[in-house]
Amino acid sequence: MAERKKVAVIMGSDSDFPVVSAAVKKLKTFEIPAEVHVFSAHRTPEEAAAFAKNAASEGFGVLIAAAGMAAHLAGVLASYTTLPVIGIPMKSAALEGLDALLATVQMPGGIPVATVAINGAENAAVLAAQILAVGDAELAEKLAEMKRQMREKVAKKDAAVRAQAEQL
Amino acid sequence: MAERKKVAVIMGSDSDFPVVSAAVKKLKTFEIPAEVHVFSAHRTPEEAAAFAKNAASEGFGVLIAAAGMAAHLAGVLASYTTLPVIGIPMKSAALEGLDALLATVQMPGGIPVATVAINGAENAAVLAAQILAVGDAELAEKLAEMKRQMREKVAKKDAAVRAQAEQL
Amino acid sequence: MAERKKVAVIMGSDSDFPVVSAAVKKLKTFEIPAEVHVFSAHRTPEEAAAFAKNAASEGFGVLIAAAGMAAHLAGVLASYTTLPVIGIPMKSAALEGLDALLATVQMPGGIPVATVAINGAENAAVLAAQILAVGDAELAEKLAEMKRQMREKVAKKDAAVRAQAEQL
Amino acid sequence: MAERKKVAVIMGSDSDFPVVSAAVKKLKTFEIPAEVHVFSAHRTPEEAAAFAKNAASEGFGVLIAAAGMAAHLAGVLASYTTLPVIGIPMKSAALEGLDALLATVQMPGGIPVATVAINGAENAAVLAAQILAVGDAELAEKLAEMKRQMREKVAKKDAAVRAQAEQL
Amino acid sequence: MAERKKVAVIMGSDSDFPVVSAAVKKLKTFEIPAEVHVFSAHRTPEEAAAFAKNAASEGFGVLIAAAGMAAHLAGVLASYTTLPVIGIPMKSAALEGLDALLATVQMPGGIPVATVAINGAENAAVLAAQILAVGDAELAEKLAEMKRQMREKVAKKDAAVRAQAEQL
Amino acid sequence: MAERKKVAVIMGSDSDFPVVSAAVKKLKTFEIPAEVHVFSAHRTPEEAAAFAKNAASEGFGVLIAAAGMAAHLAGVLASYTTLPVIGIPMKSAALEGLDALLATVQMPGGIPVATVAINGAENAAVLAAQILAVGDAELAEKLAEMKRQMREKVAKKDAAVRAQAEQL
Amino acid sequence: MAERKKVAVIMGSDSDFPVVSAAVKKLKTFEIPAEVHVFSAHRTPEEAAAFAKNAASEGFGVLIAAAGMAAHLAGVLASYTTLPVIGIPMKSAALEGLDALLATVQMPGGIPVATVAINGAENAAVLAAQILAVGDAELAEKLAEMKRQMREKVAKKDAAVRAQAEQL
Amino acid sequence: MAERKKVAVIMGSDSDFPVVSAAVKKLKTFEIPAEVHVFSAHRTPEEAAAFAKNAASEGFGVLIAAAGMAAHLAGVLASYTTLPVIGIPMKSAALEGLDALLATVQMPGGIPVATVAINGAENAAVLAAQILAVGDAELAEKLAEMKRQMREKVAKKDAAVRAQAEQL
Repeated sequence: MAERKKVAVIMGSDSDFPVVSAAVKKLKTFEIPAEVHVFSAHRTPEEAAAFAKNAASEGFGVLIAAAGMAAHLAGVLASYTTLPVIGIPMKSAALEGLDALLATVQMPGGIPVATVAINGAENAAVLAAQILAVGDAELAEKLAEMKRQMREKVAKKDAAVRAQAEQL
Repeated sequence: MAERKKVAVIMGSDSDFPVVSAAVKKLKTFEIPAEVHVFSAHRTPEEAAAFAKNAASEGFGVLIAAAGMAAHLAGVLASYTTLPVIGIPMKSAALEGLDALLATVQMPGGIPVATVAINGAENAAVLAAQILAVGDAELAEKLAEMKRQMREKVAKKDAAVRAQAEQL
Repeated sequence: MAERKKVAVIMGSDSDFPVVSAAVKKLKTFEIPAEVHVFSAHRTPEEAAAFAKNAASEGFGVLIAAAGMAAHLAGVLASYTTLPVIGIPMKSAALEGLDALLATVQMPGGIPVATVAINGAENAAVLAAQILAVGDAELAEKLAEMKRQMREKVAKKDAAVRAQAEQL
Repeated sequence: MAERKKVAVIMGSDSDFPVVSAAVKKLKTFEIPAEVHVFSAHRTPEEAAAFAKNAASEGFGVLIAAAGMAAHLAGVLASYTTLPVIGIPMKSAALEGLDALLATVQMPGGIPVATVAINGAENAAVLAAQILAVGDAELAEKLAEMKRQMREKVAKKDAAVRAQAEQL
Repeated sequence: MAERKKVAVIMGSDSDFPVVSAAVKKLKTFEIPAEVHVFSAHRTPEEAAAFAKNAASEGFGVLIAAAGMAAHLAGVLASYTTLPVIGIPMKSAALEGLDALLATVQMPGGIPVATVAINGAENAAVLAAQILAVGDAELAEKLAEMKRQMREKVAKKDAAVRAQAEQL
Repeated sequence: MAERKKVAVIMGSDSDFPVVSAAVKKLKTFEIPAEVHVFSAHRTPEEAAAFAKNAASEGFGVLIAAAGMAAHLAGVLASYTTLPVIGIPMKSAALEGLDALLATVQMPGGIPVATVAINGAENAAVLAAQILAVGDAELAEKLAEMKRQMREKVAKKDAAVRAQAEQL
Repeated sequence: MAERKKVAVIMGSDSDFPVVSAAVKKLKTFEIPAEVHVFSAHRTPEEAAAFAKNAASEGFGVLIAAAGMAAHLAGVLASYTTLPVIGIPMKSAALEGLDALLATVQMPGGIPVATVAINGAENAAVLAAQILAVGDAELAEKLAEMKRQMREKVAKKDAAVRAQAEQL
Repeated sequence: MAERKKVAVIMGSDSDFPVVSAAVKKLKTFEIPAEVHVFSAHRTPEEAAAFAKNAASEGFGVLIAAAGMAAHLAGVLASYTTLPVIGIPMKSAALEGLDALLATVQMPGGIPVATVAINGAENAAVLAAQILAVGDAELAEKLAEMKRQMREKVAKKDAAVRAQAEQL
């Protein structure tokens, strides 16, 4: 098997880090090499463009982009690469993240952004893992294991809540 | 007085032209030189970036950008220039233009887009004229004249509708 | 290189086919083997579940799911597989597709759906191609070629619209 | 009269319990036997499916399902049973619960979910009681009594507020 | 088994009939006796109130109420009865039915309305059947049969669409 | 009794007339003298202001203002008079009238606009009649008569729809 | 001049009182006699109906109704009276008051509710005063005086803010 | 070069000052003379109108207007001047600023308002600077310098976040 490709986790502002760090942590649990950046589609458009253009040749397999408000970051990256780009719409001070969601997901034909839930940083990482796992049986098994663990965790919560409900 | 600066009217897709042409026509009534382009933030990001970077030195004073859905065009242009960028959110097949409006107007600090109404192509041209008129008394007078004509036109409609209402 | 994996294109209702067929056609242009199905999350939940469970072992690499209204199909498939699942929210008779968009994209932690634009069938296929291309240099080149063609097409439209604008 | 059927109160996450417990408490006031579960449509789809499939034969008369975001739980249960399924859309961190409401209520033909208000746990229980009361005169009387008490309570509040208003 | 209870299908305006008739037809397929009315919450509040008050003693088991805009009809009926009331939010000329949906579903504690999808007349009938079937094994079997038929119908559509897709 | 005060029906654009004419017609059925105008809050602000300032002394009792998009007309009139101002939010080409509704109803403290439904021209007239009827017993009786007629009309529709439903 | 008519201030729940009390206080400043009530459209429909039916003969000139969520109160009152009914949509725990706004304002033809802003209790009182002032010169003068005071208050704030801005 | 024109920063209420002060501060960094005012479109319409009418002759080049709810201020100013008017929609207690956004941006043809993001006071100032810089090379250079500094600031944040990410 070829070496595992890297995932870039790019955020539009360092204020997104507390939410986005969940993606970085999740990638670590999958042993996927990650590189974290702050690039702004509007303040550092050339850095963002340059990064996206070179991403494939630099060994990246997937780009994750988190941005709020008129969230152009994922779309801008996608315009410079044919790697899959995952967009995380960030909830900001107004409009509950609806602005970022629409600005991320409603991409025109030919330039998709794989959009996850508002503030869905963990899921961006899982989706990145799923993408890399298409050609990586070991990673696929890690994902299967994660699914089993989620199932067990819910079973435990089921028992716990049933006990709590008895006390009502 | 220096020569009047040009206005660029840029649309993300040629399907926007039937709406956007109203901006071109309006600029003509103000005798403002206009240059019309189709640049896509996502399909031709480099052309869009290059145009915006050179716009000031090429004699442009204002950029108008029309785009629908995840409308990044105005923001992308604004990231490469300090000229005022006017955004026209286009109404597309879904969501009544709300997606384009939010993707255009909700820009982060430092990179404004002067957003007009959904499909508001005429107003984009008027706003461009108002901007150029700040240092151009002749153009300011044209705007004042337009305001007077609008007023007269409403007065005529007032009379016409009052007559119609008599017939109800 | 291993044989290219298949993409499943699943829709919740045959009434979605006129829109979803754009995905099938696009996959053909990439020479990606596709299998088309109508499975309803609500009317044939067991068929949907069985398909998703076996998809990886049946040689699928990506699942595309299109559904409208309370669009559960992508999420239901995702709950039974760790393959990447791409969701297309379909615009239905009410609410402009906002219902399907939110029901598709707002997935809880651990079970992402890679959501594209409302009615974004073409982009679902492009995204599927991008995912498969992570480990498939030939497909990556096809995507790069598509990007080049899009760029040229916009350049032609730019010229055409500029000519049209002269006539205004 | 046959023995009263049970009501299942199922939530997608144990974090929903503080809201959902109001449903459990209300069912107790009606002396309706309730069984509480945490099943996730996405993390434990098979448990959820199995529960729904067997619910009728296990003596359940109504299922209540509470879930947030892309709230598929009620719909998934409804796809495996013909018992009435009541959906409680939960308000989560973003979008004020609109996502869960649309994902719960906009069900396609043939598979209804009886949707109550966002976070409307108490009303889910009342609706379950109303459903069981169709064939249960004793329960119908309890509901009538509850209605009388609500009326009296409002009358007392009317007096109290009128007194408060005097002091303004 | 006691005689099957009746279902009332009440609409706020006769202009709702083309949509609401789907509920009436569906009830007929279940052999559920139905009574159809036009009562307006706002134009005939006393008729609506009187009907709801007497509905239980007149042999009704479930009330279905369809209304658009500020859709108060279901809530008004529910305020006068403890029978389950199913609300159908009707799509009107503005706001895509969102007004009717929120006015129907967001009921305060103690007075639930079992809300179905916008224009979801068929589902209102299915839900009514599910409610009556809680104590009616024959009706429960009809519902199970309907579920089987839906499944078969989807299977046929699956085959048909797969054939169509071959031709693309 | 003093002479009946006049009602002004003001629209922001003559394109609103087909909808607004319903208000004029309804006022005629109440024998309320009406004066119809086209004044634009933005194109003829001084005419609008002057009209509002003098309205009370000119014998008007109520102003009705219909406008779409960023509907400022009702608010602008209200800022120049203490007469009750009724706002009709007009549905325009985008956003289903939500823009006009919010721009009309969300007035700051001290300057209310009595807002009716989107395109609710008839109701604006009824509300104007209700306002004038507070001190006009004859008009109050006309309103009571209208209410009786609405009731009878619904009763007839009830019979007609019941007959239609028999045929299904 | 005839004795001034009373205004009823009715709220759907005593939890609305902290907001609604602003209406009561404002009415006092106008020396308009007010009567405050808690009536629920859904919990005490008969009390609400009876109150509305008798309101005109009991000396009320205007009804103010405040309710949240599926806010039916104003509409229910309006269905039993031809007095002007002013609706205050209350902001509740979810959806920012949009539910109450639509449920209040989108009334069908013939039964208007004069809707003010979300939580706009003060404006409901001002509107009630404006309505009563149509036939009450003394009250009209009070409103004119309030307008003058608002103007002066803004002038003072203008000066204060200008001073503050100097310090920035 | 002619003397630099002034920018007026006008807010509808002094409660907007904490947000709007960011615009004043930003203008100072550009050495643009600013004049700050509280004018209410509804409480002091004549002061607002008079200011706008005279603004051009008083040496203003751009007007900035901040208002919330049914935000008419920018539109009212724009109706009395042909200077560019920049609108800042303010987030208020309900609806997340969507009301102010739509009331500001959806202007009719002929009277544009250059709308920035909800609470986007800083961007209003940057846009004002961009407008004045069209004919002011020194100011244009300041804007270019600001863009360079933003870029450097992001580069520093990039480094800082990468370091933080190492620690996860």
